[in-house]
Amino acid sequence: MSKFVYLFSEAQNLSKDLLGGKGFGLVQMSSMGLNVPPGFIVTTNACKEYYLHGIEFISELKVQILEALKKLEDLTHKHLYKLEDKSKNFPLFLSARSGAKISMPGMMDTILNIGINSTSSKILSEKMGTSEFADNIHLRFMKMFLDVCAGISNSDSSNAIDRYDSLDEKLGYMKKCYKEKISHVFPEDPYEQLYLAIEGVFKSWNNERAIYYRKVNNIPDDIGTAVTVQTMVFGNLDKNSGTGVAFSRNPVSGKKEVFGEYLINAQGEDVVAGIKTPSPISQLKIDMPNVYDEFVNCANILENYFNDMQDMEFTIEKGKLYILQTRSGKRSPYASVKIALDLLNEGKVSEQSALNMVSPKQIQSLLHSGFDEKSLKEAKLLSRGLPASPGAAVGKVVFDSETAKKMHDDGIKVILVRNETSAEDIEGMASSEGILTVHGGMTSHAAVVARGMGKCCVSGCEEITIDENSFVSRGIKVNFGDFISIDGTSGNVYLGKVDVSSSSFSSDILEFLKIADKHKKISVMSNADNPKSVSQAISMGALGIGLCRTEHMFFESDRINFMREMIISRDKESRIKALDKLFQFQKKDFMGMFEAVKGLPLTIRLLDPPLHEFLPESDQEISKISLDLGVSERVIREVSSSLKEFNPMMGHRGCRLLISYPEIAEMQVRAIIESAIEVSKKNNWNIIPEIMVPLIGDVKEIRFLKKIIVETANNVINKNNFEINYKIGTMIEVPRAAFMADKIAKEVDFFSFGTNDLTQMTFGFSRDDSQKFLKDYYENKIYLFDPFSTIDSQGVGELMKIAIKLGRSANKGLKIGVCGEHAGDPESIKFFKTLDIDYVSCSPFRVPVARLSSAVD
Amino acid sequence: MSKFVYLFSEAQNLSKDLLGGKGFGLVQMSSMGLNVPPGFIVTTNACKEYYLHGIEFISELKVQILEALKKLEDLTHKHLYKLEDKSKNFPLFLSARSGAKISMPGMMDTILNIGINSTSSKILSEKMGTSEFADNIHLRFMKMFLDVCAGISNSDSSNAIDRYDSLDEKLGYMKKCYKEKISHVFPEDPYEQLYLAIEGVFKSWNNERAIYYRKVNNIPDDIGTAVTVQTMVFGNLDKNSGTGVAFSRNPVSGKKEVFGEYLINAQGEDVVAGIKTPSPISQLKIDMPNVYDEFVNCANILENYFNDMQDMEFTIEKGKLYILQTRSGKRSPYASVKIALDLLNEGKVSEQSALNMVSPKQIQSLLHSGFDEKSLKEAKLLSRGLPASPGAAVGKVVFDSETAKKMHDDGIKVILVRNETSAEDIEGMASSEGILTVHGGMTSHAAVVARGMGKCCVSGCEEITIDENSFVSRGIKVNFGDFISIDGTSGNVYLGKVDVSSSSFSSDILEFLKIADKHKKISVMSNADNPKSVSQAISMGALGIGLCRTEHMFFESDRINFMREMIISRDKESRIKALDKLFQFQKKDFMGMFEAVKGLPLTIRLLDPPLHEFLPESDQEISKISLDLGVSERVIREVSSSLKEFNPMMGHRGCRLLISYPEIAEMQVRAIIESAIEVSKKNNWNIIPEIMVPLIGDVKEIRFLKKIIVETANNVINKNNFEINYKIGTMIEVPRAAFMADKIAKEVDFFSFGTNDLTQMTFGFSRDDSQKFLKDYYENKIYLFDPFSTIDSQGVGELMKIAIKLGRSANKGLKIGVCGEHAGDPESIKFFKTLDIDYVSCSPFRVPVARLSSAVD
Repeated sequence: MSKFVYLFSEAQNLSKDLLGGKGFGLVQMSSMGLNVPPGFIVTTNACKEYYLHGIEFISELKVQILEALKKLEDLTHKHLYKLEDKSKNFPLFLSARSGAKISMPGMMDTILNIGINSTSSKILSEKMGTSEFADNIHLRFMKMFLDVCAGISNSDSSNAIDRYDSLDEKLGYMKKCYKEKISHVFPEDPYEQLYLAIEGVFKSWNNERAIYYRKVNNIPDDIGTAVTVQTMVFGNLDKNSGTGVAFSRNPVSGKKEVFGEYLINAQGEDVVAGIKTPSPISQLKIDMPNVYDEFVNCANILENYFNDMQDMEFTIEKGKLYILQTRSGKRSPYASVKIALDLLNEGKVSEQSALNMVSPKQIQSLLHSGFDEKSLKEAKLLSRGLPASPGAAVGKVVFDSETAKKMHDDGIKVILVRNETSAEDIEGMASSEGILTVHGGMTSHAAVVARGMGKCCVSGCEEITIDENSFVSRGIKVNFGDFISIDGTSGNVYLGKVDVSSSSFSSDILEFLKIADKHKKISVMSNADNPKSVSQAISMGALGIGLCRTEHMFFESDRINFMREMIISRDKESRIKALDKLFQFQKKDFMGMFEAVKGLPLTIRLLDPPLHEFLPESDQEISKISLDLGVSERVIREVSSSLKEFNPMMGHRGCRLLISYPEIAEMQVRAIIESAIEVSKKNNWNIIPEIMVPLIGDVKEIRFLKKIIVETANNVINKNNFEINYKIGTMIEVPRAAFMADKIAKEVDFFSFGTNDLTQMTFGFSRDDSQKFLKDYYENKIYLFDPFSTIDSQGVGELMKIAIKLGRSANKGLKIGVCGEHAGDPESIKFFKTLDIDYVSCSPFRVPVARLSSAVD
Repeated sequence: MSKFVYLFSEAQNLSKDLLGGKGFGLVQMSSMGLNVPPGFIVTTNACKEYYLHGIEFISELKVQILEALKKLEDLTHKHLYKLEDKSKNFPLFLSARSGAKISMPGMMDTILNIGINSTSSKILSEKMGTSEFADNIHLRFMKMFLDVCAGISNSDSSNAIDRYDSLDEKLGYMKKCYKEKISHVFPEDPYEQLYLAIEGVFKSWNNERAIYYRKVNNIPDDIGTAVTVQTMVFGNLDKNSGTGVAFSRNPVSGKKEVFGEYLINAQGEDVVAGIKTPSPISQLKIDMPNVYDEFVNCANILENYFNDMQDMEFTIEKGKLYILQTRSGKRSPYASVKIALDLLNEGKVSEQSALNMVSPKQIQSLLHSGFDEKSLKEAKLLSRGLPASPGAAVGKVVFDSETAKKMHDDGIKVILVRNETSAEDIEGMASSEGILTVHGGMTSHAAVVARGMGKCCVSGCEEITIDENSFVSRGIKVNFGDFISIDGTSGNVYLGKVDVSSSSFSSDILEFLKIADKHKKISVMSNADNPKSVSQAISMGALGIGLCRTEHMFFESDRINFMREMIISRDKESRIKALDKLFQFQKKDFMGMFEAVKGLPLTIRLLDPPLHEFLPESDQEISKISLDLGVSERVIREVSSSLKEFNPMMGHRGCRLLISYPEIAEMQVRAIIESAIEVSKKNNWNIIPEIMVPLIGDVKEIRFLKKIIVETANNVINKNNFEINYKIGTMIEVPRAAFMADKIAKEVDFFSFGTNDLTQMTFGFSRDDSQKFLKDYYENKIYLFDPFSTIDSQGVGELMKIAIKLGRSANKGLKIGVCGEHAGDPESIKFFKTLDIDYVSCSPFRVPVARLSSAVD
């Protein structure tokens, strides 16, 4: 049998894959000479074997566990007490903790105080001179063991247990429950307890919330968890003991200072679970200055070693500091940026490493983060808690996670209000705009998870009292479904809806994004349809406009009727007449956009949607239009019905429309070139407009339209006697275009993948219609993500590869980009970086995310 | 300059590509020692050069033409007469005829009698002792020349010319017309006439009808025509002269006999144009027995040389036989088969060559070819003409091609009734069910073209008189738009509509198709949804059913309401209740089909269309259903509106439906397996049902459904305690499936390409919606054919290749087929044969076409 069990001292050369994050940290710390309670690790390979061979494997594993245990007992001069043990040694107590290669905080199980039974309890009580402590850890152990190894949850059993007075009665009751549930007698033997605990941790790898967490965080299901078995140290022994959680830097502000909380005379779980509100770590400096200094020293050593902000758990047992865990600390989006920049400036990390420390999604959340000043002044302050995770959130009050999820799925924005949160609340938190808790500090479950999610959170709002379907604060009763607004930056809670202002970036973030730009793998452009959006996009750092959808302009009230006039026209002549009127508007639009884009590229797509989208539907509208245009209702209805399509997505749109009505393309090209010339002249700029043709599926389509574009453009150029260059490109958005890409590439200067349509056609389902059945797909794990949000690399991606390969082979200078929804999605950009493309073009507000996505490794 | 002009005697080693079909035949015949009027050929390369360089090229070409002409004059001891020529030689007259590599009968231009002018006319009149002949050919020449070289059509000028009495006046008028049209004086110089004639023939390559003909016959536009310049021989010299067209076998019946027509004392164009109704060739045997024998001998020589039935033009000049042209003869579909079989039996061609002699499209037309006997008895006989092209056709009378085309496009069936047809009528003929002509024989334009098209035709129905918008026959007036029925096998014409019976194949054709099956490259299965269709498909030679669409069964009146009950069900329980009722019907359907398919494979596709297709739309229907089902109208409307989709083609259908409602798949699988077991037991057959899942785009979809299918099937098998095998397959019809094909192939036994949907998704347009704009595409030559009729090898075909390669790589035993519309299209099958597929599955009536398509090279 291979080796599956390693003492910390034996594991120095083993990988995190094998030891899990927690075990790896302990081994590192141990080898650095930090004071770590000794222990051993059952590797992730053991977990995998367990899932292959089950309980049989565990009994084979026992030999290795016993061997490691023997060494541990020798090392600590303590030992596990069997029931009939007569020795008087100090009893050994162990913890068994989960720990995968990738951190999944709180998702899997832990059992503390393994080794307690009537014999060891007796010895412990004798040693301590009181049975109080022994009874306390005995009860804790039993509760955890029943929860992990028998699935009897704390909340189920707590009330029942509380009915009994004596410890013996309580223990007796719990053992009875165990036997009823499991059909085995409760194991008094501490070795049995350990084996079962290890198995219990293995099993917790596949509990529901762990599976869900892996799914949302894209963690593979087959990497398994290690089990760290470690000597217990006790923070609840006396007033010289305590336990705490602290970060090497401030996880909210990013400031360089030890930040955390501790509880005197308590066990670690009390802090993490948020059951007691702890003191800030500065209190430790007052209570035990030497221990505090030692801890700060440890924090520095660890941060320097790992070159990242550390999240550490520690316990003080009778004045002696033990570090129980260290890991890279979760932090608020803002702190992520701040810490990365500081570490870079301190010379601890490279630019690329600093960039990799911030997830693109975090950047997104830094945008909408404040309440509008004016609106705030009128707002009614309900309470003030701890500013646990920054941001501003508005939503309806809900009191449980299930309801939060349900309402969110129905499109309702909610704020989750809880006494405290636990791992069961993960989905509910993800579904909420923000989280408000009554108990718990800055490192409570709610705070840590919310920061990780980039969600706004106010914790420890103790003046609130929750009563089933309402809460009361400062005398005001807030019911389920009422609106509140919470500010995770100040900790304030307001009644009703407060306006959120779309704040701009702070200078730190701008600096960080500039570093990102230096390391970009692909350029980031933006989609914008009007001068205001263009300016917004440029201010967000877009290098130009990759997609201007001209159809949006036709919907504006001053021109929609000319558009309708054009559509209702029965012959080319009257169509051209209507188009001439639209021309004036288009030209004005384009001039505004050319001004706003300040000489950066501007890619204008010719008319794309089917014409019936521009026609009115209701009787009332039709009669209005009839009056406005002086055309009979009958004619309008006739045109409308002649344009009706069974599947408009696959109908008369895009280049197909322009082929049927080349005069539309002519008008648009004329407007583009004339406006580019005028703005060039005025500003003495050298504008090179880019004209993009949608929905091309055959080279003859683009040849046909290119001829029209070139003739029209050159006419305008000659008439104005002003030399201007322009580019012609095409969307690649129907699968066939990928196979024609070499031929098409010879005709154009650029490709822009319209990944929305390409996804629709490749999957054969439309974005609108698929949402109905995709929920069945998620439920049955057929798809794990929405292919309209994150690019499908296997299908759509393959088509992209074909198109890029063929396109580049035929036209070396071809510029290639992506302008679908996916262009602003970090996961998708990750994939795009593996392709040979030049740019992505996303909505203005996603530009910063895309900039960072483009730069991270 | 390269050599572009070759005497017949110089051209023996040149290809048909260069000489054109007509020239090639003349060169061959000339070298075989047959009596061919001497001449030379201007090659197709010259035509291409002309289209590159225009008139300049012609002037360069003159040197070579003059050189060839000199040799020709030496050879014939005749010469072209310039105006002032004083010699007394017999004048040389030439013809200039078109001839491309691929025959395009009547599409391009010909000029006869080049060389006639006042001088040569005078000499000729002197030699003949009368000016009648000279005047005749002079007038003919002028008309043709004006038509070809000045675009002054015969019909335009004929009436005007007839106003003049004397030849000089007529010629004068025509020269005036020429000058007005062309702004050049009419060329009296015969050399000029020749150059212009050659140029005229080149130009006729791109006249409208030639372009159209190439388009419908898939002939490339860039191969060009050769010009054959040949010494004129005259069939209109005297009673010992004549001209004719004859086939080496009967082109209607295929019988081995010389078959044709001739006219005494006439020029060839008279026969071809159908202006005069000629005598059968048997008359030649009586008139000139020696010439007849010589001709029959020639026909045999030529047929043996070319190993195919020949279509020959001949002229007898003063008792001497000249062969003017030979080519592979067009024949009726039935004759195609008969001749191919006879040539095979005569040992002249191999089986494969015999198969290649029949086009798959011809087989199609052999199916609907007779009038129903009973209906015939009651029919009123209007007239009887020549049985020019077999078949039975019913339609409304139209008198011009344009109207025929227009009505056909509007979905109206028409019979084109003309005095005679000409090349301008091609489109109109193609748009008609059948053609009826007053004049013209079995080899008239109408007859030849109709046979080529496989259209029914009755020609030479001389008792009919057409008067603009009606015709009269046997005292009955038939108006435009009235129905008539024509029988191309008997020559009968009936008043009104006679029922057409779908006749079965004759034994010849069955024998021929059996030979085809021996040489098949892919198997032919059929699509059928009920026992009757299954039997029909098997009788047509299908090797099984490749696609049974189960949804058609649910639309029948006795079950549609249970289907609706199922759809309206709000929970799984009531859905299952409704499905249980449908189960009984499904099982009965499947039992009938398993009986009908007699142990051959039967592939059943699970439910495919979106559920809303089954719901009623009109208020009236809704209230009826509401009563029938005892469900409120509101509920029906609610369900209906919840099922509405923006793009149903890309909505909740196919496997997506089955994933949402697995109970539908369960019911269907249960019905399939139970019925297969019962029919197996009853007949002692070993039925292996094939279950096909539509619209798969991801391996997890098929895994999910496969599990349900296997569990359900095995349950039924165990319950019945009867061992039965079954196969599971999937449609490949969304582009993504192609890229997933390796993974999918591991889960299934077979793939069936649904090329209809695959075409829709690949092009990004739906079959229904695209017809509106595809006409603009055809007009602008962006697409040359409908991708829903003939497979798009460049796009859809590439996806198929990817799917096949990946599928085969993962599953060696994978069976692969095609079951879209394309499965019955000869052009598409040609492409499918280049892929590694096992079968096509088409509608029963297309099975014979597919069988032959699968076999031809």
